[in-house]
This record gives sequence, C-alpha cells and structure tokens, in this order.
Amino acid sequence: MGNVRKAFGVDIGGTNVVIGLVTENGDVSDVKKFQTKDFNDYRKLIDALSVYIKSFKDECIEGIGIGAPNGNFYKGTIEYPANLPWKGITPFAAELTEKCGSKVFLTNDANAAAIGEMCFGAAKGKKDFIMITLGTGVGSGIVINGNLVLGSNGMAGELGHTCIIPYGRKHPGTGLRGSLESYCSAKGIVETAKEFIAKFQSHSPLKFFEEKDITAKLIYEHALKGDALSLQIFEYTGELLGKAFANFVMFSAPSLIVLFGGLSKAGGLILNPAKKYMEENLLEVFKNTCSIQLSGLPEDDAAILGAASLVFQNVKN
Amino acid sequence: MGNVRKAFGVDIGGTNVVIGLVTENGDVSDVKKFQTKDFNDYRKLIDALSVYIKSFKDECIEGIGIGAPNGNFYKGTIEYPANLPWKGITPFAAELTEKCGSKVFLTNDANAAAIGEMCFGAAKGKKDFIMITLGTGVGSGIVINGNLVLGSNGMAGELGHTCIIPYGRKHPGTGLRGSLESYCSAKGIVETAKEFIAKFQSHSPLKFFEEKDITAKLIYEHALKGDALSLQIFEYTGELLGKAFANFVMFSAPSLIVLFGGLSKAGGLILNPAKKYMEENLLEVFKNTCSIQLSGLPEDDAAILGAASLVFQNVKN
Repeated sequence: MGNVRKAFGVDIGGTNVVIGLVTENGDVSDVKKFQTKDFNDYRKLIDALSVYIKSFKDECIEGIGIGAPNGNFYKGTIEYPANLPWKGITPFAAELTEKCGSKVFLTNDANAAAIGEMCFGAAKGKKDFIMITLGTGVGSGIVINGNLVLGSNGMAGELGHTCIIPYGRKHPGTGLRGSLESYCSAKGIVETAKEFIAKFQSHSPLKFFEEKDITAKLIYEHALKGDALSLQIFEYTGELLGKAFANFVMFSAPSLIVLFGGLSKAGGLILNPAKKYMEENLLEVFKNTCSIQLSGLPEDDAAILGAASLVFQNVKN
Repeated sequence: MGNVRKAFGVDIGGTNVVIGLVTENGDVSDVKKFQTKDFNDYRKLIDALSVYIKSFKDECIEGIGIGAPNGNFYKGTIEYPANLPWKGITPFAAELTEKCGSKVFLTNDANAAAIGEMCFGAAKGKKDFIMITLGTGVGSGIVINGNLVLGSNGMAGELGHTCIIPYGRKHPGTGLRGSLESYCSAKGIVETAKEFIAKFQSHSPLKFFEEKDITAKLIYEHALKGDALSLQIFEYTGELLGKAFANFVMFSAPSLIVLFGGLSKAGGLILNPAKKYMEENLLEVFKNTCSIQLSGLPEDDAAILGAASLVFQNVKN
C-alpha cells in the first residue's frame, strides 16, 4: 500500500476550483470543491488550498499538479486569465510551494487534461495526439512524440484561438476575429443558432424560445428529437471543427484527436460531421491516419486526474 | 583533418537533383547537378547517385542524407510526389543503401532545410522554430524542443496545404481549396496578380503584360519601382502569410519563423506585412514572442547542407 504514488490534482476553473487526491493508478478520493468567485485575490485561494493540503499530514504526497487557464508550465504562473476573479500574472506555483512545502507543477487546463488522457484515458499508449476541450471555450493540449508541446514561452497549444474564418465573428474576450472558439464552443453554437434562426425560413421549435433561453443543451435536445434546424446547427459546427482538425493534422500528424467537455457529449452529432470534413480537407498522405474519439475519462475526475498526472510525469520515482 | 565528419547531402527537386559533400562544419564541396527529368524511373537516379558516391571510395563518409518532396523519414520512402517523374511510393533510402552500402536518411525537403537552418543557419541555438519555404510551392519543417516534428506517419509539417481561406482557390495538384500554397507561393502570387489586374481600375505597368508573362519576379521588380498595384499584391500576400503564421504560433509557440526560397527574396515587401498581420492576429500572451527572419544559408548549398545534417544528427559520433 505504501508504495502507491500519490499526488494532489487541482483544477482551477471559472466556476469552481476542485482539489482531489489521486493515486498513480488513477484512483481519486478526498475531492473538495471551492467556488472560484469566493477568491477575489489568488492568495486567498492559495491559503484555502494549503490548509486543505496540510490536513493530510500523514499521507506521503509527491507533489501538487494544477491545471489553470493560461497556466505557464515553465514559470508556474497564471497569466492574464480571462475568466478568473484576479488579473495579470500571478506566481501561483511558487507561492503554493512556499505555503505548503510541496513540489508544484502548473500548466494550462487543457494541457493537464491531455496528460490525464495519456495516462488514464483514450490516449493511453499514444505518442502523437491532440486533446480538444469543447466547453464554454475551446481549449487544447498537444502531445508530440510522447511530450506535451509547451513551446518557447510555455504557452503553446491555444488552438481555440486560431482563425478558421477570416473576418468572422469577433471574440468578445480576445478581440480576435473568426476563431475556432467563436464558433465551436458552447457559446459559439448558441451564436450559430441565433444566426440560423434569423436566416432560415424553415419551421423549428427553436424559434419559440427567447434568445436568452437558447443554450447548447436546448439545441442538442431538439436535434435528438429530429428538428432539422437544430441538426443543421450541429452539422455546421462539426463541419467547422472538422476543417480546423484537418489543419491541425497537417501540422503535427497526430494519430488521434480526443474530444472532451460539454459540447462533446453531443457525440455523433458533432463527431460525424467533424470526421467527414476533416477527411475531405486532408492531403492524400494524411487521409485515414487520424481518428477522433471522445474522452475516456470520467467527467468529474478528469481535470484533477490530469493535473495530478503532471506530478507523476515530472517527479522521478 | 581525418577527424572532421563528412556526409553526402542530396536534394531531390522537381527541376534538379543536387548532390554534394558536406563537413560537420558546413563546408560544401564536390557538388554535382543532375536534371530530374532525365530519370523517368527512380532506380536510374539511384544508379547515378551510387556511381558518383562510389567514386569517393577513399573518403570516410558517415552516410547520405536526402531531402525529397513527400519524403517519409520513418520508412525512407518518397510517397506520391507531385513534381517528380515517377509516381507512387518508392523505397528510395533502402535501395540506395543496398547499392552503395552507406546509411541513408531521407525526409521531406523542407524538413531537411529546417535541420540545416538549425545546424548552420538563422535557427542556430533555437529549440522551437518553423521553417517555411516559399518557392514554386510552400513547404514547412517544424522543430519543437530541438526535435523535428515527424508525427505518427512521419509526414508531419505540411503547412502549405493548410486552409487559410475557406472555399478559396482550388489547388490544381491536391484539389484542396484555399490552401496557403494557393496564395503564398510563386504561383499563388501570380494568380493574385491576375485577379488584382482584372479587379482594380488603377493604372499599372503590369496591365501591359500578357498573362503568361507575369511572374513573381516581374511583380517584384515593379513593386521595387513603386508600382502601387504590385505593392498591393505583395501586401496582400504578406497579409495572408502573417495570418497563417499567427495560427502556427498559437499551435507550437516558436520563437522564430525562418523564410527560405524564391519569394522570400522580396525581403521587406513580404516580411513587413507578414510581421504586422501575424502580431495583429495573436492572442496577447504570444505577441512579440516570435520573430520572422530570412534564411541564413547560402542559397545554392542550403538544401544539401540540410540533407547532410540529417546524417550528423542521426549517426552518433
């Protein structure tokens, strides 16, 4: 028993901060959830986390892994997060280490998810794959030859912000036009729904809802019931996703793209058009070399599993 | 003298096949040029190369490096080359080894150029950079954390075929629409010129040429003389290139993009708009993290330097 490696995994998100104890076998326990909005200063979050961590004084913990928006692995900083209550660049890892004495590894939340997927999920045994998180935003973690791509500034893998439609929708957070995130996130599909409702004459139950009540889930439910407009909205979203994937495949030639997050629960509604349009837009030598799969991780634990995997990957046993 | 490592570098191109002897210090000698069209069968080229190589029987050669269109490093094959006289998949490296007994390493021509640039050129000491070759086509070689990106199928880094304009120009060779190569190659800029000549009312000396006589060089010469239309053509080409670069930077976070090939000789005419539009389309955390530079390699030797570097990189000294 004493030989099983253990680490804390922390997922810092716009709504919740979740911490859990993870074994190298992927067992998760002692999960605790905080509300992100309760921490207007990142130091208060560090205090809360270290109080919790220190309460495990009898456990032999190898370290703490953190997935956070705009996390910089090299510096252990969170840089200009759009959806967290604090701003600027914060030396999160260094200050948490100081407080609780443990090694701390911090990276982008989607990077953490990618490592989790490689250690415990759909990408087990894969050396070249891309993790795409389809949630409120679109995140990504890229693995090449078994290593997470961090790049010269430690921030590589922001595929959600790549442009897929020149002069397309303006992203309210970044100011960039036509980004993947503007179309293929939960927010993006709602925008598409509004456009399609205004543009197409066809009858659809979606037209009876007020704009503010239209959600990705609502569109999904109507698509399941066979509503043509809702199906078209998913087809279009999957088409854009598939075309973006073709570009990604011609960059790093992954053998797998893993989808994770709320929108990926639409399953075939997203997967089928994505696969079709990816293949259509690939150069001959890349056709049928890359599959698209849904995440193999349990939803509630995925983020902390991934974050804790950072520790198992970076601390020599 | 006897301690200086030596290898042959071979560049297989659509027009010429060039072989030269390269030292680990980057000295090139004994260059011989063949015309590609003289080899309707790849085996004839292998024969010609091995006759030449065997004539150096007194030299201690570590191996032969080859850069070729659609070269597969893992398999040593050339796969479905668009611009070579032979077709299909050819086991080029294996058969050349058999003929002349040397170790043979083969990769994509742009990958070879990237390694050459890392060993001898503008990317010396860089761990994360992207090489973009702007010639008849647009090729690329991607280096991440000091390693060439080969991907799951050995063919990664085909950035010239990524889509930059959905439903854009159809590429005659690949059938893909809106690819970077369709706009930012020597052929692409000529297409742009034809479109701009037809579309814009402004006077321009370009309008006095027959379509078939318009070349990238002609547009360049008129741009240098201050012709507004020619300048616009370069500005547009650089704009598209810069926007594509922004997407690449958000993928792998390189600290440098190196430009090589005919069109890159336009210098500032291409570099300035490329830099401007790249920066404008980057997420905040990537701004001013990646420079764009022209190749540091002598043009005539670059390809064989790069190809020979493959040997120095892969044979342990």
